[in-house]
Amino acid sequence: MDIQVIGVRGLPLIQKGDDLPALICDRVAFEDGDILAVASSVYSKAKGFTRDLAAIVPGADAVRIAAKTKEDPRFVQAVLDSSADVLLEHPFILSELPSGHIGVRAGVDHSNIEDGRLIVLPPDPMGAAEDVRSGIHRITGKDVRVIVTDTCGRAFRRGQTGIAIGWAGMTAIDDYRGDTDLFGHVLEITEEAVVDEIAAFANFVMGESHQGVPAVVFRNCKAWKGHDMVYFTPEEDIIRAALKKNKKD
Amino acid sequence: MDIQVIGVRGLPLIQKGDDLPALICDRVAFEDGDILAVASSVYSKAKGFTRDLAAIVPGADAVRIAAKTKEDPRFVQAVLDSSADVLLEHPFILSELPSGHIGVRAGVDHSNIEDGRLIVLPPDPMGAAEDVRSGIHRITGKDVRVIVTDTCGRAFRRGQTGIAIGWAGMTAIDDYRGDTDLFGHVLEITEEAVVDEIAAFANFVMGESHQGVPAVVFRNCKAWKGHDMVYFTPEEDIIRAALKKNKKD
Repeated sequence: MDIQVIGVRGLPLIQKGDDLPALICDRVAFEDGDILAVASSVYSKAKGFTRDLAAIVPGADAVRIAAKTKEDPRFVQAVLDSSADVLLEHPFILSELPSGHIGVRAGVDHSNIEDGRLIVLPPDPMGAAEDVRSGIHRITGKDVRVIVTDTCGRAFRRGQTGIAIGWAGMTAIDDYRGDTDLFGHVLEITEEAVVDEIAAFANFVMGESHQGVPAVVFRNCKAWKGHDMVYFTPEEDIIRAALKKNKKD
Repeated sequence: MDIQVIGVRGLPLIQKGDDLPALICDRVAFEDGDILAVASSVYSKAKGFTRDLAAIVPGADAVRIAAKTKEDPRFVQAVLDSSADVLLEHPFILSELPSGHIGVRAGVDHSNIEDGRLIVLPPDPMGAAEDVRSGIHRITGKDVRVIVTDTCGRAFRRGQTGIAIGWAGMTAIDDYRGDTDLFGHVLEITEEAVVDEIAAFANFVMGESHQGVPAVVFRNCKAWKGHDMVYFTPEEDIIRAALKKNKKD
């Protein structure tokens, strides 16, 4: 059966306190097994994960880094506040969040929000996905899988793509270690980051500035089995180690 | 209009000399504007971009690296032969290909091919995409956009995802520099790597070991404008620089 990919149109500008699952359910007739990708920005706005730039007092590190990145020190402070470990300070801040996600400017964003305000990523992105999933189940009775997405640059290639920062009702990785290929060989490529593949295409459908389409439904997608260990440990992560070493040098 | 995503099923095991566009057109009623994602592995097999392991004589570098990676020195030689610049030798070879793509083991693969043979990436992946596109136009008269995909690991996150190594009939990047967000701000995130977002979801549909679905059709996708500069220059690429510096140390 073909997969259908449906952009959720007509959502209002999301405000703090809005019931995001209810607003989405008003516009989508969900079916069991659907995958809903929702932009972290609208989840954060509904939950009030935003900050007033005017209320932020930058510390010494923020002032020092901001001089290098040519950004507002208060913005840099918000990035540092969202970060557990900074891997790179310049030409842009690359940091690890408490969730394990490594991203540019810790996902702090001043697009798609009023002047002087910042959107930060949901501090518990896995909980955010589960929250949307249970909200939809409460309203519709349907068993929907949910991915919370962010837009992020990547190594070696220009341009941002959508990635998953939280997911519920599925595993991040489709793990087929031990399976065989078309010729009966045990597969070498054994772990596919399916949540990121779906988040990527969701971001394509959301489009520039999310064009008022901050949620995308995927219908007739397969199920899979695997695990959620999408983030390397620091010991496993060769590129992180190289960046940390360079930072010290 | 909803997007339809159609896995192309029932293709035979591809052999050297097969007319891949014709085999796909036998199974898909293309419409103008469709995007076809095709796995580089089947393109390479159709064109004979494969190697006999037994015919490869490993050089000193291949022998030295193979001792560290615990791989067959002949396999390592094939990886080096496909590489323009090696960024990391161990625990896996990460290298830049002549096309600019940076990937693990230069995309050389011994899955989904007979024992003792290797599949290498098409040496001209942009030409490969154009070749499939023009083949489909010749057969059907339809104006189809084409992405040639590979499966590749990424920095900071476990698991492989599909990426684009060649594309035709579209630009790699949707460039909306100067556009404004929902609040009228000029956008900060301005370059979206749309070919990679589509390739990622294509890989999800292809599934493990590509399950006999090495081609995926996307119908009703928007058009966009941008550019093809998806690969950083060495000067722009911070992570590449860090890896090269560590290699020297």
